[in-house]
Amino acid sequence: MRATAEIQAVPIGSSVSVREEVERAIEVLGRHDLVLETHAAGTNAEGELATILDAVRAVHETLHAEGTVRLLTYLKLETRTDKTPTLEGKRA
Amino acid sequence: MRATAEIQAVPIGSSVSVREEVERAIEVLGRHDLVLETHAAGTNAEGELATILDAVRAVHETLHAEGTVRLLTYLKLETRTDKTPTLEGKRA
Amino acid sequence: MRATAEIQAVPIGSSVSVREEVERAIEVLGRHDLVLETHAAGTNAEGELATILDAVRAVHETLHAEGTVRLLTYLKLETRTDKTPTLEGKRA
Amino acid sequence: MRATAEIQAVPIGSSVSVREEVERAIEVLGRHDLVLETHAAGTNAEGELATILDAVRAVHETLHAEGTVRLLTYLKLETRTDKTPTLEGKRA
Repeated sequence: MRATAEIQAVPIGSSVSVREEVERAIEVLGRHDLVLETHAAGTNAEGELATILDAVRAVHETLHAEGTVRLLTYLKLETRTDKTPTLEGKRA
Repeated sequence: MRATAEIQAVPIGSSVSVREEVERAIEVLGRHDLVLETHAAGTNAEGELATILDAVRAVHETLHAEGTVRLLTYLKLETRTDKTPTLEGKRA
Repeated sequence: MRATAEIQAVPIGSSVSVREEVERAIEVLGRHDLVLETHAAGTNAEGELATILDAVRAVHETLHAEGTVRLLTYLKLETRTDKTPTLEGKRA
Repeated sequence: MRATAEIQAVPIGSSVSVREEVERAIEVLGRHDLVLETHAAGTNAEGELATILDAVRAVHETLHAEGTVRLLTYLKLETRTDKTPTLEGKRA
């Protein structure tokens, strides 16, 4: 099932700047078969629903393995059966 | 990896009342090995991160199979390595 | 206009434990004319839309005045014209 | 107090396509003194915290006045005291 999503990873308690961890999260998302569009409040994604969820799990596992103590992710997911959901279609 | 989450399913375009689909979504979540606490803005969950993500996928697959045309899910996920994340711990 | 909401304040970079700031945020919300129900992923609120938004602003102003350096708030708002939105109605 | 935000308006029960109402919401946001960047999962905003909250309220009031029966808004707000929050800064 195809889906679109928005993924925002928020590391807690590291430091006021979370840039390094956020960049790492985006890098991890980028290893998956997803169309990604990063913006100021997260990264939009398009692909298989299962791939999106796997990518989110990989972000949590990778960041914790690399030292992040506490990680929140805010995720918006969308699926529809009347047409294929795409980021392009949501912008048009 | 243990996680806590909040899951809110929002069917679009069915009717102004989404109660039936939301109840069905909660029922689908309930088939998974998760501690669940439903409130006015979603259902909080505690369990394995992979189980939470599987449950979210099952909600999308089930509701679409039963006729929902468009489904948004808003998900908050939290993991931490300094202690086991629990709903109890987040309330206390 | 009456509304229901969910409000979650997330202080960044203070420490791994954000309990003190979250409790303070809930205390600030409590000074407004709102029905509040705190749960593991935020605080649900019912009242005038303007009051809810004022309360959110007061949380940001108060926590920054007391030393929080960076504050995210995740807010879900709902209004409807077919009936008065209440937390009770969303649970029933 | 300056803030950055992400605003996503979700009309419920109108029809499977919510494009017209979402475009109207963005138009209403555009009447306020805010930097706006629309993407596939919402509209990012930068400006005074009070102006952002006023704009959100105007979206609810305007859409309901024009016939929307039920409206959810998902809002991410961020303020910080160590530097001026900007959309540019969150992307850089």
